[in-house]
Amino acid sequence: DTESQGASSTGATPSEEMNGTGNLMDFLDEPFPDVGTYEDFHTIDWLREKSRDTDRHRKITTKSKESYWELIKSLLDAWSGWVVMLLIGMLTGTLAGVIDLAVDWMTDLKEGVCLSAFYYSHEQCCWTSNETTFDDRDKCPQWQKWAELMTGHSEGAGAYVLNYFLYVLWALLFSFLAVSLVRVFAPYACGSGIPEIKTILSGFIIRGYLGKWTLLIKTVTLVLAVSSGLSLGKEGPLVHVACCCGNLFCSLFSKYSKNEGKRREVLSAAAAAGVSVAFGAPIGGVLFSLEEVSYYFPLKTLWRSFFAALVAAFTLRAINPFGNSRLVLFYVEYHTPWYMAELVPFILLGVFGGLWGTLFIRGNIAWCRRRKTTLLGKYPVLEVIVITGITAVLAFPNPYTRRSTSELISELFNDCGALESSQLCDYVNNPNMSRPVDDIPDRPAGPGVYTALWQLALALIFKIVITIFTFGMKIPSGLFIPSMAVGAIAGRIVGIAVEQMAYHHHDWIIFKNWCRPGADCVTPGLYAMVGAAACLGGVTRMTVSLVVIMFELTGGLEYIVPLMAAAVTSKWVADAFGKEGIYESHIQLNGYPYLDVRDEFTHRTLATDVMRPRRSEPPLAVLTQDSTTVEDVETLIKDTDYNGFPVVVSRESERLIGFVQRRELTVAIKTARQKQDGVVSSSVVYFTEDNPQVAEACDPQPLKLRRILNLSPFTVTDHTPMETVVDIFRKLGLRQCLVTRSGRLLGIITKKDVLRHMAQMMNQDPESIMFN
Amino acid sequence: DTESQGASSTGATPSEEMNGTGNLMDFLDEPFPDVGTYEDFHTIDWLREKSRDTDRHRKITTKSKESYWELIKSLLDAWSGWVVMLLIGMLTGTLAGVIDLAVDWMTDLKEGVCLSAFYYSHEQCCWTSNETTFDDRDKCPQWQKWAELMTGHSEGAGAYVLNYFLYVLWALLFSFLAVSLVRVFAPYACGSGIPEIKTILSGFIIRGYLGKWTLLIKTVTLVLAVSSGLSLGKEGPLVHVACCCGNLFCSLFSKYSKNEGKRREVLSAAAAAGVSVAFGAPIGGVLFSLEEVSYYFPLKTLWRSFFAALVAAFTLRAINPFGNSRLVLFYVEYHTPWYMAELVPFILLGVFGGLWGTLFIRGNIAWCRRRKTTLLGKYPVLEVIVITGITAVLAFPNPYTRRSTSELISELFNDCGALESSQLCDYVNNPNMSRPVDDIPDRPAGPGVYTALWQLALALIFKIVITIFTFGMKIPSGLFIPSMAVGAIAGRIVGIAVEQMAYHHHDWIIFKNWCRPGADCVTPGLYAMVGAAACLGGVTRMTVSLVVIMFELTGGLEYIVPLMAAAVTSKWVADAFGKEGIYESHIQLNGYPYLDVRDEFTHRTLATDVMRPRRSEPPLAVLTQDSTTVEDVETLIKDTDYNGFPVVVSRESERLIGFVQRRELTVAIKTARQKQDGVVSSSVVYFTEDNPQVAEACDPQPLKLRRILNLSPFTVTDHTPMETVVDIFRKLGLRQCLVTRSGRLLGIITKKDVLRHMAQMMNQDPESIMFN
Repeated sequence: DTESQGASSTGATPSEEMNGTGNLMDFLDEPFPDVGTYEDFHTIDWLREKSRDTDRHRKITTKSKESYWELIKSLLDAWSGWVVMLLIGMLTGTLAGVIDLAVDWMTDLKEGVCLSAFYYSHEQCCWTSNETTFDDRDKCPQWQKWAELMTGHSEGAGAYVLNYFLYVLWALLFSFLAVSLVRVFAPYACGSGIPEIKTILSGFIIRGYLGKWTLLIKTVTLVLAVSSGLSLGKEGPLVHVACCCGNLFCSLFSKYSKNEGKRREVLSAAAAAGVSVAFGAPIGGVLFSLEEVSYYFPLKTLWRSFFAALVAAFTLRAINPFGNSRLVLFYVEYHTPWYMAELVPFILLGVFGGLWGTLFIRGNIAWCRRRKTTLLGKYPVLEVIVITGITAVLAFPNPYTRRSTSELISELFNDCGALESSQLCDYVNNPNMSRPVDDIPDRPAGPGVYTALWQLALALIFKIVITIFTFGMKIPSGLFIPSMAVGAIAGRIVGIAVEQMAYHHHDWIIFKNWCRPGADCVTPGLYAMVGAAACLGGVTRMTVSLVVIMFELTGGLEYIVPLMAAAVTSKWVADAFGKEGIYESHIQLNGYPYLDVRDEFTHRTLATDVMRPRRSEPPLAVLTQDSTTVEDVETLIKDTDYNGFPVVVSRESERLIGFVQRRELTVAIKTARQKQDGVVSSSVVYFTEDNPQVAEACDPQPLKLRRILNLSPFTVTDHTPMETVVDIFRKLGLRQCLVTRSGRLLGIITKKDVLRHMAQMMNQDPESIMFN
Repeated sequence: DTESQGASSTGATPSEEMNGTGNLMDFLDEPFPDVGTYEDFHTIDWLREKSRDTDRHRKITTKSKESYWELIKSLLDAWSGWVVMLLIGMLTGTLAGVIDLAVDWMTDLKEGVCLSAFYYSHEQCCWTSNETTFDDRDKCPQWQKWAELMTGHSEGAGAYVLNYFLYVLWALLFSFLAVSLVRVFAPYACGSGIPEIKTILSGFIIRGYLGKWTLLIKTVTLVLAVSSGLSLGKEGPLVHVACCCGNLFCSLFSKYSKNEGKRREVLSAAAAAGVSVAFGAPIGGVLFSLEEVSYYFPLKTLWRSFFAALVAAFTLRAINPFGNSRLVLFYVEYHTPWYMAELVPFILLGVFGGLWGTLFIRGNIAWCRRRKTTLLGKYPVLEVIVITGITAVLAFPNPYTRRSTSELISELFNDCGALESSQLCDYVNNPNMSRPVDDIPDRPAGPGVYTALWQLALALIFKIVITIFTFGMKIPSGLFIPSMAVGAIAGRIVGIAVEQMAYHHHDWIIFKNWCRPGADCVTPGLYAMVGAAACLGGVTRMTVSLVVIMFELTGGLEYIVPLMAAAVTSKWVADAFGKEGIYESHIQLNGYPYLDVRDEFTHRTLATDVMRPRRSEPPLAVLTQDSTTVEDVETLIKDTDYNGFPVVVSRESERLIGFVQRRELTVAIKTARQKQDGVVSSSVVYFTEDNPQVAEACDPQPLKLRRILNLSPFTVTDHTPMETVVDIFRKLGLRQCLVTRSGRLLGIITKKDVLRHMAQMMNQDPESIMFN
């Protein structure tokens, strides 16, 4: 009767066992063996990390009562979180400032050079000049285009061709440098980094992804990539850079460096700091980290993120790279409110944004899949060079694509003031009208505006196509700026169209109520902003953080409603074609084990359908509490690659008593073989609480391993719906879960089993996503 | 050998059991019995609610393939969430607008009446008048104070006394009406409602708390309470009103009315809509719901909250109660940036806010405890009358307390423009200076400012003391406005002090760098705003949502840093004296079963220390799978009041197979006794999968109840650290959890056991809170 043998071998009746609390505590007193780090490309166990941190914390609290020194140490420990945030904020802000300055200079270097000091950008060059006329702010003698410098002629076909040639040449040089640096020194520095950071934050280990080399190379190559004029932005990579900073400062404090869970709290906050400096939007940064990037985001992390984002924004402001003492990238001020009827074009822009998001995600994923599977992936340098060449050649002739994308967006967002010299503001002025600084009434468009519209339409097509091919190349590349550019161009075109319609047909019923002649009723810049929000929303599926970022960019309380309407529409439209944003799509493309909190699992499978072993597979590799020998264990470790093994009372009863980690088992046996006398291959490994009653003479010395046994493994029954299992994995951050029935061990479910099952079910029934 | 008997009675070896998947699915096909509603003052089981919703959803999806009508129904179901949000937003916005208008009118009614139309407020009255001079915007012949109307004299001691008397009389009338209505019709309508809503959202049932009567009475009494001039605000109660609206619209859709989990998602969004209209801050509302109120806040709820908040704000804007087409309660615009050195007074204001928070929470809780335990609690009407009397008598003589608190805050926030007629802006003007509209340089304070300072200091003391006694009375009362008032007064005083110091000592080293004579360097209104944020933060411990709300109030991007600095300081200072904000303190005072996500549990107790039965208690009430009779079950139900019973293989083996709900068991037995022939008291209740092999002749008909058995009860082992158990309860929203050891049932832990244990441990070691 094996069942009863198994029961009696635990040596205690249930009521006796309950009295054993004192004993249990003794076991916990032994220090947790420090072999708890994880291997590369493995998943962390959140519950375990949390409980390790509590142990550490408890120890410090206890010690702090012993002496003043320990008290001070415990206080320092309590404040170390805020110190890390301060350091991250300062370094991220500084790096962002340096990147901004360098990009400014190098972008202008493609066109010309400042004679008074070669390290001045065009704008800085003409600031310091006092020969600048007010009309042509951008023209000053110190700034010379390459052709002018080399040949002395600034006009004519020859000069144009020379400038064109040098523009392309610089672009190729920058992008070649960027891709070479990435390939040679830090392969992880490519891409936007956000899909990987999402995966890391969800509890995956990718060693070196947030390392010092990556930090250095990504910062340098980001400058090069952005300056090369490719259709990419610096926002995503800045989040990666900020997370590298976070990881760097984690290593200063053992509280964070030794605990993968705590480290991820810091990284979440660092991501917030990254967006904070990317846009100068601290609150938007915190919300972006919450909505888009983070996985486990307790309120404590919310407060710390807030602090880090604040310090970063403040540091950036102190550096003042834009020279306007504004935090934000695109500062605009509008003077007119919007009207209810304008919601129609705003919602149409939302629809456009949703469609663009779908097109971009499908196109980009298809192209990235091709890169992964065909020969193309073998020649990343060539790919970058070719795309840069095409971009530069096509971009130069069009004034709206020649300049940097952020300058373009800035111009598109801006309202036409009286002092605006842009082509977009070439309206026909009424000579009788006195010109106030602000609040200029709607006017008919001049020839400049029509030219601009054509050029913008071409720029729109160009940006749409080239961005699909650019994102995902082996250089740092963000997609916030290109997406916003697409939306801003479309929005500005729509805005001008509505404005001209309102001017020429102000007796139409829709314009009658709000647009008297001579009034300033349509602000095309606002349309550009709404369009940018819609397109960014379509690609990333952000909503709240997106509106907050746009809101922080402008400070216009009045424009929350248009922005929200466009963001929500764009999300709805894009979601109708597929639930996943670009980051989730890239996570799936790369096969990262990411358990998205947004996917709802609604299938009626049970734990028993997912657990291993399957019916055809060999039985589960288990250890018994008092009948496995050291040799058996070593064979098991050699023959399998599981992360851990369940321990049962006996092979016959299969009643689960705990779970032991592979790593800890290996280390424990190795140590015992080296140090503990009498432990040989035939020694029996004991996981029981009591000392085994063995006849010392005939048997070899037993090996007691209860201290490495996890006595509280997570279990579910075989009848548990998978929906609940998925929920448990998500919310508790489990690595694996044992499946039992009436106390008997039946199998195991790992995070990868869950992910595989979810993917399987999703493919079986693709329609179901429509109904969430 | 009972163990083996127990094992064989399941009738299958493990491998056979695994093949039984088909069977398991059949069991799930049977409809879930619809007895799953919860009793009053009980906790819901989130996992169960979620799985019920998935079942419902799955059924609809399957049916939708059958016909077009079902497809349309399924689409309607998918969109019903957004429809509910739209309805909530519209009703909440409308109610907020009506409340604003009514409060405006009734507050002014205490002082006088409009002759042209009695339902006009003072402001509306003088708007419509065209006899208003620009200097005295507030004085127009149509508006008459009571004394003027009654006696014809508007000046003199007699008129003053008469006005005083009528002011107090109106206040007493309003508050008497408010407290009487609350007592007679809806006792739940009192207080701010936020502690209760937090508790409800965490999964507690309080029937009627969000009912139609509460909605109606709270709306009416809120107007009365605010108009009575008591030191309370409308923000908290508006959240309660919005949640009542949410609950009302839930009842229209069975998706929400029949599922307590889904209902709570709607309520979270409704809370966001409430704050959105309270301040005109939609983003702040969403963040408030996230940071302060909600418990389970998935991203889907975030988007929906956002939408509800938007619709509500939009509806309010359409009603336009403030007549300025601004959404926000306190619209301000400052013209000067702030300087680094000003961070020192801002941080000092943060410290003040933290201290005020601590004082208020301690004082208010002590007073509320006294109310609960002494005779005071028996006379709520008298208490309200007395406090109203004291408030009105003390408030009238001081111009800063006589007016409504929101007007006071609005005046304190405002910058002194050239057109400002307020006493606070009585500066000595330089006659040689031309007066531009904005950007007035710092000037020496005139006598009016000094008078104002004295009056403000008195108002500060008055507000501090009276608010402590007011919050928690049996009328609707929010504390946002009083807290902000305290902070705004303190801030304005500090602001004027700094301003005068900077003016008179602009050669001091700290002022030298940024404050040239004749420059406008200090904005006292900004100090008032920073102070308000600090005080509100100290009381509620909000950070991010607080700053976002303040930011939305002003639209001043420039002032994020001062606001953040003050909010963070105030939180730190207040946290040093105690972790709990006012809402958590009230939850604790009332003993609601609220498992705060913020409390970190760091003690080393194990599940075995918390589970019941304790050593001295009788063993756990369990059912066996095939040996309990109907009579046994009925006795157990009668003798105990547990919510459910574990089912084990046999009393001897104690191997857990499932959990059965008390309610479902009662219903099932009752139904069986009525409808199923042959079920008598001695019938055996079977929970096994197979048909019991009983001799039909001698035994009574068995009762098979496997379909009501929950086959996936949540279990932990007795060695599980309580820290993990607390985490599981929090994150999965469990109601109870069974404790096993090697598959044997040892005991049970309910949510209340967890809460009791946490409170116990907290009291044992009060120091530990300092180290989080």
